[in-house]
Amino acid sequence: MRGLAETLVEDRRFSSAVMVAVIANALVLGLDTYAEFPVTVHRAFAYIDEVFVAFFVFEQTLKLYAWRRLFFDNAWNVFDLSVVTISLLAVGPFAPLGPFSVLRILRVLRALRLVSVIPSLRRVVEALIRAVPGISAILGVLTVFFYIGAVMTTSLYGADHKELFGSLGASVVTLFQLMIFDGWAGEVVRTVGATHPGSQIFFMVFTIVTGFAVLNLFIAVMVDALRAEHDRLETGDIEAIEQGQQTTAREVDEVEQSVRALEAKVDAMMEKIETMTAALEKHDRGNS
Amino acid sequence: MRGLAETLVEDRRFSSAVMVAVIANALVLGLDTYAEFPVTVHRAFAYIDEVFVAFFVFEQTLKLYAWRRLFFDNAWNVFDLSVVTISLLAVGPFAPLGPFSVLRILRVLRALRLVSVIPSLRRVVEALIRAVPGISAILGVLTVFFYIGAVMTTSLYGADHKELFGSLGASVVTLFQLMIFDGWAGEVVRTVGATHPGSQIFFMVFTIVTGFAVLNLFIAVMVDALRAEHDRLETGDIEAIEQGQQTTAREVDEVEQSVRALEAKVDAMMEKIETMTAALEKHDRGNS
Amino acid sequence: MRGLAETLVEDRRFSSAVMVAVIANALVLGLDTYAEFPVTVHRAFAYIDEVFVAFFVFEQTLKLYAWRRLFFDNAWNVFDLSVVTISLLAVGPFAPLGPFSVLRILRVLRALRLVSVIPSLRRVVEALIRAVPGISAILGVLTVFFYIGAVMTTSLYGADHKELFGSLGASVVTLFQLMIFDGWAGEVVRTVGATHPGSQIFFMVFTIVTGFAVLNLFIAVMVDALRAEHDRLETGDIEAIEQGQQTTAREVDEVEQSVRALEAKVDAMMEKIETMTAALEKHDRGNS
Amino acid sequence: MRGLAETLVEDRRFSSAVMVAVIANALVLGLDTYAEFPVTVHRAFAYIDEVFVAFFVFEQTLKLYAWRRLFFDNAWNVFDLSVVTISLLAVGPFAPLGPFSVLRILRVLRALRLVSVIPSLRRVVEALIRAVPGISAILGVLTVFFYIGAVMTTSLYGADHKELFGSLGASVVTLFQLMIFDGWAGEVVRTVGATHPGSQIFFMVFTIVTGFAVLNLFIAVMVDALRAEHDRLETGDIEAIEQGQQTTAREVDEVEQSVRALEAKVDAMMEKIETMTAALEKHDRGNS
Repeated sequence: MRGLAETLVEDRRFSSAVMVAVIANALVLGLDTYAEFPVTVHRAFAYIDEVFVAFFVFEQTLKLYAWRRLFFDNAWNVFDLSVVTISLLAVGPFAPLGPFSVLRILRVLRALRLVSVIPSLRRVVEALIRAVPGISAILGVLTVFFYIGAVMTTSLYGADHKELFGSLGASVVTLFQLMIFDGWAGEVVRTVGATHPGSQIFFMVFTIVTGFAVLNLFIAVMVDALRAEHDRLETGDIEAIEQGQQTTAREVDEVEQSVRALEAKVDAMMEKIETMTAALEKHDRGNS
Repeated sequence: MRGLAETLVEDRRFSSAVMVAVIANALVLGLDTYAEFPVTVHRAFAYIDEVFVAFFVFEQTLKLYAWRRLFFDNAWNVFDLSVVTISLLAVGPFAPLGPFSVLRILRVLRALRLVSVIPSLRRVVEALIRAVPGISAILGVLTVFFYIGAVMTTSLYGADHKELFGSLGASVVTLFQLMIFDGWAGEVVRTVGATHPGSQIFFMVFTIVTGFAVLNLFIAVMVDALRAEHDRLETGDIEAIEQGQQTTAREVDEVEQSVRALEAKVDAMMEKIETMTAALEKHDRGNS
Repeated sequence: MRGLAETLVEDRRFSSAVMVAVIANALVLGLDTYAEFPVTVHRAFAYIDEVFVAFFVFEQTLKLYAWRRLFFDNAWNVFDLSVVTISLLAVGPFAPLGPFSVLRILRVLRALRLVSVIPSLRRVVEALIRAVPGISAILGVLTVFFYIGAVMTTSLYGADHKELFGSLGASVVTLFQLMIFDGWAGEVVRTVGATHPGSQIFFMVFTIVTGFAVLNLFIAVMVDALRAEHDRLETGDIEAIEQGQQTTAREVDEVEQSVRALEAKVDAMMEKIETMTAALEKHDRGNS
Repeated sequence: MRGLAETLVEDRRFSSAVMVAVIANALVLGLDTYAEFPVTVHRAFAYIDEVFVAFFVFEQTLKLYAWRRLFFDNAWNVFDLSVVTISLLAVGPFAPLGPFSVLRILRVLRALRLVSVIPSLRRVVEALIRAVPGISAILGVLTVFFYIGAVMTTSLYGADHKELFGSLGASVVTLFQLMIFDGWAGEVVRTVGATHPGSQIFFMVFTIVTGFAVLNLFIAVMVDALRAEHDRLETGDIEAIEQGQQTTAREVDEVEQSVRALEAKVDAMMEKIETMTAALEKHDRGNS
């Protein structure tokens, strides 16, 4: 039984069917947003959606049954399972009612499986996630700057500019707006500057400092990407050069040993010649 | 006949004439936008434009006649032919009437030939197009994010904010606006935040995630450009080093062979000396 | 006594306690911004804040006592001391009154110690500061452009557009807004263009020139980061290659010396053989 | 006389005096923008300004007299001379009157000499200018895109949106605004989209295509900067490696020659031994 499940789950046609279902489901969810459709159509969409959910529940159960513990070794399986489980909470008998009906929106998360079923998109998301640790320290510094900035602006300008700086949350939104250069002068700097002369300098400094931090965040991601590229490209070259050097060194070593061997032979020959000379001299002496 | 057409088409003066015609035509189309000119002037422009079209039709026909199948080997020829054909549909006897008169605007596409007739601009466009495959996966991920974002925001905020999120199309425009940091706080985040508290967090996350994806798209294009540069620059150096190594290795090899040859000679000499010693000893024994 | 202070100050648990105090203090300052809390709560926060200040004063005094002159060798100690001293001026008996009560906001600067107590954040800020000298010349050029731009726009457009260009300060804000592409057309270019035709060209040139300078500022920071990376990565490789070369050169040298030694021996042998031949010839002559 | 002028002009104290005059003049021009000053103060500023002009005219005349033709070899001298000449047209007896009084603003250009008198700023501007040729082709493509875009949008939307697309000039400003993501949705896309459904897609495509071209412009500047850096850094290393290789190759060559010399000697020795053997054999035969 389990072998059969494994064969089915690992079949290319099964993955293709899942991919088609994910895309079709995403399209249905998109069509469902058109308010112009009559209610019967929306009801039909809801029914179709439940069929998709049933299929995905079947798919996940089968995979869990086939792979058991190995299922959890791949983070993407866990991702798929979470997405299906969460969207399960939003349909059919579990459908939230009344004030919680907003949670039905979570079904849309199923469309996130578009990423997990297409390998090239998967690699992109993996690369995006891998880039985060390298910038966590800069994000930490930005968090501190935003926190201090929010506390200061809320205290200083909150009373006069409720919408912009009325609370820590509002201040974070406004400071984010300054950092991304949005409505910088028109909405924030000139508005606050009218009531608090000198605040323009604070805003300029905040914008430049956080902008500079974001720039360095940017550069950190890029240097990481270039380092990976460098490792891939040059290491091969450098290794080839180093291997070439080792080969040369080995050959030179062999030459040295040959020369030494030759030296030993020449030494032996010299000894022979000396013996011969001695013999010859003795012979001469004997003759004379 | 065909040889004559080929000679004409490949003549430098012919390409120069085409270039001049393309630029002149573009200028006429630009002048034609000035609504202040009297109707007679606009009519004159229309007449001049038809002359240009006639020239371009002649040019394309000649090239097709001269090169036949080879014409289609160069994508830029196909581009020129398409542009001329499309703009042909918008003038003279084919001129669209009534509600279709808007199609006359397609004549302007002829000005795109400014790119195809100037080699340096051509190379830039070729480089831009070559950069696309390297970022197609990131564009795919962005498409999924935009699609899910549009479905969610249309469902959640569409009813209360018709202009921003009234349909999937409107939502895509608004999410694009968030991604490019345009009217971020003033038009979208604070407007929706007023009716849906907590939506600010969704918008911030969407902005940061898509911004981060765009940053990586950016980096992907750059790493590709640097890789090409690297291949051009370093490969030469590395090859020079590797060639230098091979030369050294070959020389060391020659030394080794010389040493071995020397060894053989020394061995032969040793043999000779031993024979001699033996002869000398025999001689000595014979003497004594 | 001083040894005890040193032991305490360098204890890991002491640094941990300081870190916890800095974070807790930052949170209290954040909570204090909620205007909804009753006055008694804010008074409690003020009391807690004074306790934190007392602790930080104790901490700094202890460090000064323990390390004395060495304290000032680390710029972060000086930073901590300044932050604590400045915020000291804003609480308790030194609390500014009346129009100066705005200075109480300086207490928030204490939260900046979040950076100095977390080593990874410290390294980020150090990197940000290290990047400044490399871009100081570009900042200088930008300053000149802004100054000239501000003088020109104040003179030309100040009379008609008081809010945008009424004074040098207002002009700097507006030019900064042009440089960061904020409200470019809607707030500035079209507004001024309505009264001063042709000003659009000035604004476009200013935007492109300063934008290009900022781009080069960006690239300067990046090239610096890549240079540091390069030094870290390649120098190792290059050094390995160069060391490999030196090893080979040394070995080849040794081979050369061996060959020369061999040559000397062969020369000596040759002499011997010549002596022998001479002896043999003499012997032959003597025999005959 | 000319030698004296040359000595004066090349004196460090003279350049310092010019630098101080340029800075002081720039400050006076800045102070002059404050409309609050009484008329007498502005009149004083005008007088001081004329003194500066006199000094700069003296400086330029002296340099021309001292260096003659060599003066024009340095582009910065030509720049200084142009700036002084242009601002001369705006003061004293040449001061423009009536509608031309706006030209008095050209005096501010003298502050541009802040760049030419400070060497580090000079190098930055030189670097900025050097970067232009590398991006001229991309600027050409952008020009074509803007021209075609302006003709199309003026024809299509000009009638309904006079302010945004009423003329080619207005369209260029609006398209520039789209490219820099300013007021993208609020001022342009949604405004035009309300009267021309489908125009959103045109604007999105235009924004993405020009944005992508600007990105590549960016990358082109960066790759150039990195190439220069690479040349500076690596060429040294690569050359050191290549030189090391040549040294090794030369040494190996020497070894080979030594070995060959040795071989010749061994050959000679062999001959000798053979002669000896022959002599010995003859001797033996003679004896027996």
